Amino acid sequence: MYEFSSSVNSVHSEDIKLLMKLSSGKSMISFAGGMPNNDLFPVKEIDEIYNSLPEGIKKLCFQYGPTSGYPPLVRSLQAYLKDKGLPVDTNKILISTGSLQAISIITQEFVNRGDLILTENPCFVGALSIFETYEAEIHGIQIDKDGIDIEALKQKIASLEKIPKLLYITPNFHNPAGIIYTPERKKALLEVLSNSGIILIEDDAYSDLYFREDEKYLTKPLKSYGVNDVEIVYTGSFSKILGPGFRLGYMLASEEIFEKAENIKQALDACTSNFMQILANEFLVQDKLYPYLGFLRQEYEERKNILQISLKKYMPKEITWHEPKGGFYVWLRLPEHINSTEIFRESVKKGVVFVTGRTFDPESIKDDRLRLSFSNMPKDTIEKGVKILAEVIKTVFDNTKINS
Amino acid sequence: MYEFSSSVNSVHSEDIKLLMKLSSGKSMISFAGGMPNNDLFPVKEIDEIYNSLPEGIKKLCFQYGPTSGYPPLVRSLQAYLKDKGLPVDTNKILISTGSLQAISIITQEFVNRGDLILTENPCFVGALSIFETYEAEIHGIQIDKDGIDIEALKQKIASLEKIPKLLYITPNFHNPAGIIYTPERKKALLEVLSNSGIILIEDDAYSDLYFREDEKYLTKPLKSYGVNDVEIVYTGSFSKILGPGFRLGYMLASEEIFEKAENIKQALDACTSNFMQILANEFLVQDKLYPYLGFLRQEYEERKNILQISLKKYMPKEITWHEPKGGFYVWLRLPEHINSTEIFRESVKKGVVFVTGRTFDPESIKDDRLRLSFSNMPKDTIEKGVKILAEVIKTVFDNTKINS
Repeated sequence: MYEFSSSVNSVHSEDIKLLMKLSSGKSMISFAGGMPNNDLFPVKEIDEIYNSLPEGIKKLCFQYGPTSGYPPLVRSLQAYLKDKGLPVDTNKILISTGSLQAISIITQEFVNRGDLILTENPCFVGALSIFETYEAEIHGIQIDKDGIDIEALKQKIASLEKIPKLLYITPNFHNPAGIIYTPERKKALLEVLSNSGIILIEDDAYSDLYFREDEKYLTKPLKSYGVNDVEIVYTGSFSKILGPGFRLGYMLASEEIFEKAENIKQALDACTSNFMQILANEFLVQDKLYPYLGFLRQEYEERKNILQISLKKYMPKEITWHEPKGGFYVWLRLPEHINSTEIFRESVKKGVVFVTGRTFDPESIKDDRLRLSFSNMPKDTIEKGVKILAEVIKTVFDNTKINS
Repeated sequence: MYEFSSSVNSVHSEDIKLLMKLSSGKSMISFAGGMPNNDLFPVKEIDEIYNSLPEGIKKLCFQYGPTSGYPPLVRSLQAYLKDKGLPVDTNKILISTGSLQAISIITQEFVNRGDLILTENPCFVGALSIFETYEAEIHGIQIDKDGIDIEALKQKIASLEKIPKLLYITPNFHNPAGIIYTPERKKALLEVLSNSGIILIEDDAYSDLYFREDEKYLTKPLKSYGVNDVEIVYTGSFSKILGPGFRLGYMLASEEIFEKAENIKQALDACTSNFMQILANEFLVQDKLYPYLGFLRQEYEERKNILQISLKKYMPKEITWHEPKGGFYVWLRLPEHINSTEIFRESVKKGVVFVTGRTFDPESIKDDRLRLSFSNMPKDTIEKGVKILAEVIKTVFDNTKINS
């Protein structure tokens, strides 16, 4: 669709492209990439799995599979999601080519041009790109350290002439804000959505990456709260717990939503790679996931700790943030009069990149924040990167003071 | 989109589902599946490749890659496509998650609800499902043993009130018709499309699977004819030359079309699996493709020969077909008064399945043909399957005679 081109040539996809380009630069210290570090992937485990596959299964890797997913992986996922308290008996799983495809499928299923979609502000930029692609009218709702702003959400819904088709949220270790919803906030959100006709997309890509066991309970998905008067599509991904290169995600949805989604997927790519699904299934079946997650949590927490200490040590007092309890991101707040794009321009020159705040604003305006990702950072580079960034920020502060 | 659901719950996707179900049945003799036989996959070659990957490259398998594709694979494909005479210097390659995704992307790029799309009749059912998904108005053009019917195409274009957005064809070893366009027919088609504003999608999934070297020249792609006044999007797949389980395809298109396509793909699945792209690239770089293709051609030709001999031996004289010069399919013609769905109902009971003619008719009506796929058949089962099918057909003939 031609109309489409204008919408995707938006700041969102442009920023993504710019950042992909920049953060791929060898010389750059990059807080930009929201991906695992290459050195953290379970290469050894997948080697063992691949080389121990029976001949018959190995041949299956090369073949088409059912559109809804490789049945043994669907069963393994049922067990994995059941452990999270999710209703795997009354809902159905659709394996997708990355969780981004799951979000894309749900959008194609329910959203026509001009329909309304509610998101958090800030919001995962990949989701924003999808919603723009389907030419939805996007309304962002502000969030605080405990989750989406319930009053702002109520007012927004009341102010709209149409009922929004979807509300998209990432409640656990939010991208980019790094926060996790409190149980109270999750309950309050479910109450607002009760019988509203708004479908909730709960994107839960990060919930396994909590840092402290005694805070694990915070990651309980909204879809596991046993509420029957809210339609929730739960999406998950192997990108953060195995590797983005597998392009493996999934949705858990009601049978009715699943059936249309399966038809849409059939027309998008017929099925997801059996090869990748079989390796992922063995990863689960051979109990390699939970030990690996233990390793990942420790690695990411160490990076977070180094980042936290460095930020405290170098950042001017005007810069504030919430220390994350898990996930990949720290979301720095700047004073109102400074914008992160301005800082970005300077820090690139000094060899440090991050993602600007406006990238995550549905309207691409609000720019008083910046996202630092620690997931892809070598531990010994974090402090150096923060030091440089802090100096850049101070310089920008001074210049603005002089100019004002 | 709700409107959408009705269109995909069409006979096409329903038939696909039914057939996937049936042809997966262990006890069935299946001429239905348009996929390679599990025993033909290059498992040994991929084992060697995987286990010889340098650590650094192996880690890349797990990581995100550029939306347009893993750069080394793009370069390898350029060389591979250049050998086919394709304009890789003036056009750009986009790696897709199966060639089906490439067709889906082009449709999303150019087609809005109600736009016109021309296809061959019969037409690859996967493409029909996509075009229905985007709610296009599909017009099928009859084909004969030499390709699309040029006169019928001219008349159709003249009779339409709008200029069609796309013409979709599979000129080399057509699915389902098994034919290959003559060079004269390819030239004539390009003349009709000259400056027509209709974009040609040339789906070339099968061209490497010719049976005789002295007929290889017939597979020359239309996009390699050096015509500048027809916009051609060329699509290819690794499904037939490596394995569908890789979900690897690609398009070769003008820069303008490529750029929008890249944006659309970003919102569909961000990128195609690096893991699969890296293995496929090594398959090309290590010169494993051409030897493997030699093996495949021989295997498929043997199956075709057994099928051809069996058909001559058992089929009643009323059944006619063209012996294929390559690819996967034989397209049987039935007498006008018999329809293949009727035969299908009976043959299923006897344990033999195939794909009915109407499945490939954009209007799901024309049913005087049936598709036999020999690609997935064990050689020692083909004759038995044909014998049973021939008996079923004779019985249906006799019953219709009695009833008439």
